[in-house]
Amino acid sequence: MVTLEKVREAAARLEGVAYHTPVMTSRAIDDLAGRQLVFKCENLQKVGAFKFRGAWNAVASLSDAEAARGVCTHSSGNHAQALALAAQMRGITAHIVMPENVAPIKLSAVEGYGAAITLCEPTLEARETALAKLLHESGAVLVHPYNDAHIIAGQGTAALELLAQAELDAIITPVGGGGLLSGTCIATRGTAPEVALYGAEPAGADDAAQSLASGELVPQLAPDTICDGLLTSLGELTWPILRDHLAGIITVDDDAVRQAMRLLWERMELLVEPSGAIGLAAVLSPGFQSDAQRVGVILTGGNVDLVKFFQE
Amino acid sequence: MVTLEKVREAAARLEGVAYHTPVMTSRAIDDLAGRQLVFKCENLQKVGAFKFRGAWNAVASLSDAEAARGVCTHSSGNHAQALALAAQMRGITAHIVMPENVAPIKLSAVEGYGAAITLCEPTLEARETALAKLLHESGAVLVHPYNDAHIIAGQGTAALELLAQAELDAIITPVGGGGLLSGTCIATRGTAPEVALYGAEPAGADDAAQSLASGELVPQLAPDTICDGLLTSLGELTWPILRDHLAGIITVDDDAVRQAMRLLWERMELLVEPSGAIGLAAVLSPGFQSDAQRVGVILTGGNVDLVKFFQE
Repeated sequence: MVTLEKVREAAARLEGVAYHTPVMTSRAIDDLAGRQLVFKCENLQKVGAFKFRGAWNAVASLSDAEAARGVCTHSSGNHAQALALAAQMRGITAHIVMPENVAPIKLSAVEGYGAAITLCEPTLEARETALAKLLHESGAVLVHPYNDAHIIAGQGTAALELLAQAELDAIITPVGGGGLLSGTCIATRGTAPEVALYGAEPAGADDAAQSLASGELVPQLAPDTICDGLLTSLGELTWPILRDHLAGIITVDDDAVRQAMRLLWERMELLVEPSGAIGLAAVLSPGFQSDAQRVGVILTGGNVDLVKFFQE
Repeated sequence: MVTLEKVREAAARLEGVAYHTPVMTSRAIDDLAGRQLVFKCENLQKVGAFKFRGAWNAVASLSDAEAARGVCTHSSGNHAQALALAAQMRGITAHIVMPENVAPIKLSAVEGYGAAITLCEPTLEARETALAKLLHESGAVLVHPYNDAHIIAGQGTAALELLAQAELDAIITPVGGGGLLSGTCIATRGTAPEVALYGAEPAGADDAAQSLASGELVPQLAPDTICDGLLTSLGELTWPILRDHLAGIITVDDDAVRQAMRLLWERMELLVEPSGAIGLAAVLSPGFQSDAQRVGVILTGGNVDLVKFFQE
């Protein structure tokens, strides 16, 4: 079980390793929101995303015997970079399974951190087969991107920092598999129980909203959104935490996400990927009915493929 | 005369108004540089540039009678936005003279801060005529972008913060008119006299390098560089400070600047404009012969016209 104590242990492991990312504000955006927004800039975290927090916490928690076997995961996104960097920093091998159609820039980023990459066909089945083979052959320790207690505890350290940086009535984070949001729940409930907690989710991948509405875990089928970091289903560890602690999930469409990205760039010089900007899109949307005056918004993900995005 | 005390007074005026911007590091870039680089992220300052520090210090230093007359300047860049925001925050009028061919995004940013804009033909003569007319008619106080003691003292607060954030052997900043660099000299000489001070300048606008080599102020004629914030000549206030305190000026060509921008984006998720990335380009260039192991690099300027840059 993930507890506040586990989040605090993670924070101790991350001290001097991850950044204490800054919080930033914008009067222009506050005027639009009609509230005071405090942006926690995890887009400026190592590898450009909060994912490094969980990855380092997981890697640093391994025994020497476990570490010697290396770590592995399948991911084409920020978790792959985060795990590769964390493994490199501990001096062990990260085995990463990636689809063969992965963007070259993402492949080279993971290679740059010294990971051993296995390419597979871009289907879930091929991915899982490749990962199973790799686990069997290498004996490496699987580090799941979100359904893992160390990962959840590590991601929760961002909210711990944020709550020390600003007094808040609510916090909103993106929700994909729910690692960041469930860690945020644990960190916040234990230290600032009056703070309301929200998830921001693409309308085209709204499994968390559906799960919350129906009271049971609804898997994500056929997601359709530009938020490519938020396509997955909730996990068995993250779902019960969200179910028990959230004030709500706000869904927004891709146009709202694009507008939020543009605002962050034009008003705050922050360039974040769609999945990382969705918290602002949600707070600005009519669906956000909260009376919270001071809202913490966790931004994350600086991995924008600039050429692609701005050609649209 | 600008003294350390003036810089400290500026820091007190800026407290709670400007950001204490974060410092960031990158192991990958350190490996390339063969040194430890500490990036001071003024690109995350309000309006995206250190310019806000000087502008607020100048505006906050006005008497009520002076303030009532408003402020004015001519600028199409970050100083215009900085002065407009500072004036808006004090509740006074900023009159900004801009060339009629200014990029629409820059015009709308300055308008967004409530400034009164006067467009003129894009020549130095038309600019000065328009400014003189405006000064005469409005009685507003001229706030020069760099040749002004309050501006220099304000810009120096970035180095004061940086020196409190990291132990350093050297600091390098971009040099255009010399406001940031001369402020950095004053702040550093008074608090950490052993730290060597460098300027980074485009080869296509190298008046500071020429001035330092010849021992007298050489004006900048016909600059040719993508670093559009570094086109101007040094000023009568900034030049003697640079002459007396610098270890050197490093010049680099535009390709080196583009490479530095790309590194900052790909390795640190920081998108900075050419003029703001030049410090890194200089440290990575063969011209940087210093034996400094820990180098502070002031980054500034997030005002990249994304579409334009990435279409090249």
